[in-house]
Amino acid sequence: MKITTNIKELQQRTSEWIAQGKKIGFVPTMGFLHEGHEALLKKARLENDLVVLSIFVNPLQFGANEDLDSYPRDQKHDKEIAEKHGVDVIFLPDEQTMYPNPLSINLTVVRRTDVLCGRSRPGHFDGVATVLTKLFNIVRPSRVYFGLKDAQQIAVVDALLEDLNFPIELIAVPTVREEDGLAKSSRNVNLLDQERKEAPYVQQALQCGRQHVENGETNPEKVIEKVRQFLEKKTHGKIDYIELLSYPMLQRVETIDQQVILATAVYFQNARLIDNVIFNEYGIKTLG
Amino acid sequence: MKITTNIKELQQRTSEWIAQGKKIGFVPTMGFLHEGHEALLKKARLENDLVVLSIFVNPLQFGANEDLDSYPRDQKHDKEIAEKHGVDVIFLPDEQTMYPNPLSINLTVVRRTDVLCGRSRPGHFDGVATVLTKLFNIVRPSRVYFGLKDAQQIAVVDALLEDLNFPIELIAVPTVREEDGLAKSSRNVNLLDQERKEAPYVQQALQCGRQHVENGETNPEKVIEKVRQFLEKKTHGKIDYIELLSYPMLQRVETIDQQVILATAVYFQNARLIDNVIFNEYGIKTLG
Repeated sequence: MKITTNIKELQQRTSEWIAQGKKIGFVPTMGFLHEGHEALLKKARLENDLVVLSIFVNPLQFGANEDLDSYPRDQKHDKEIAEKHGVDVIFLPDEQTMYPNPLSINLTVVRRTDVLCGRSRPGHFDGVATVLTKLFNIVRPSRVYFGLKDAQQIAVVDALLEDLNFPIELIAVPTVREEDGLAKSSRNVNLLDQERKEAPYVQQALQCGRQHVENGETNPEKVIEKVRQFLEKKTHGKIDYIELLSYPMLQRVETIDQQVILATAVYFQNARLIDNVIFNEYGIKTLG
Repeated sequence: MKITTNIKELQQRTSEWIAQGKKIGFVPTMGFLHEGHEALLKKARLENDLVVLSIFVNPLQFGANEDLDSYPRDQKHDKEIAEKHGVDVIFLPDEQTMYPNPLSINLTVVRRTDVLCGRSRPGHFDGVATVLTKLFNIVRPSRVYFGLKDAQQIAVVDALLEDLNFPIELIAVPTVREEDGLAKSSRNVNLLDQERKEAPYVQQALQCGRQHVENGETNPEKVIEKVRQFLEKKTHGKIDYIELLSYPMLQRVETIDQQVILATAVYFQNARLIDNVIFNEYGIKTLG
């Protein structure tokens, strides 16, 4: 396994691979790898000749009130995980390497952002789109892997690839869950004992909403109400949002007549949990 | 020579070439090809295994007051020129192909644009950057060719490649000139007889300014004044601008201590002529 911090060196290497007809699978991360990332690496390893993992805590996607400096880092553990999953190259640039000068070109994401978690993070997806465009041009992958836990990020990447014609296949990998259904997250350790018992109801509430559609409901408001009732009955969490939107367009729908996402964010005392389910007009799960 | 209007088909073809280790030279144009474009095609043919020419009149780079519909078109002649220079593929998309949906991702160029011709064309280079990003991802060239006649466009493309890490070499091709030194342009036919006689003085005025630096002048204002006097004495044209800026950064300089561009735009009765010269702190021409 190679580790490089240098853009030109990696570009040289990936250009040679491509000229040899090799396919590159790419897993972009901010490090502090957990089982969710491992699922991405596993799939990338299976589907490609070569696997590149990038670890870069991208300052551009953090808001002024979000603490970039306290973002968790553990390079030693990350390298062990990468080694275990047969990663060929880790790209580990520093900020000066990625942003040596003030940018002359600004990317802004003007759709799919003013909903779900994006509403409270203005500029976040501009930073995501900018760093990914740079990374795609450095790594030049055939396939890129993201987890469906952050379904809005996948929707934005879908728009980025489509609008700018990147010749890259987007692979959306199902959310990794605990045995009781709770989506894995580094934040779960912050749940109090009683909250940890209630946390699986977040996914159950969404499934209850989906079931409602499977049973014939087509009104988004009624589905959302069902999820709200379930959450309020089963947990002490404070609901941030429950939304039902077309997927991946992330637009409001009058009636459920296409693929949609039903997503929620719930505040517990020391942790905010997010989860989602994606299904079609018959209530059948289509992704994840 | 292949002609294609389809993005996926071209992407499939260029991916195969790249996987065979072939280098692609790319000449993006808006068609109505003249000798300036021919110089680009000739150089691309010499330096690459394959040459792709794109012809697309990009609506995104036209302002509201600029007449997109009257932009000259002559596909028959363009195809003859392409054939003559051994082009392998002409990419000839329509607007629906390039912009099938409203864009979710916006590119804006926030430096190098508020000077020279860019000052009077707000948004122009945003459109250029957007279409080029798309074309680069479709064609995936090793080298891209632009003419130095539009030196500001080259400066913007330089920023685009640098900021977004495109693995593409930018080749700046010298301006093609008439025997008397007038830069070739489809607009030259609009010059009146007397104006055509005066037009070569545009380049001569710039060379006079450059000579002044070669003789030891380091003050930009004095060089600009020299060019102004020369133009006013030798032509009846109305000066739009004369600017001296660092190149390719296009920033104002206090003193000439690095590579700079000296550029002008002059209105004649039915034609606006632009020209430039690029030189270093010793007044020695460095590009073009």
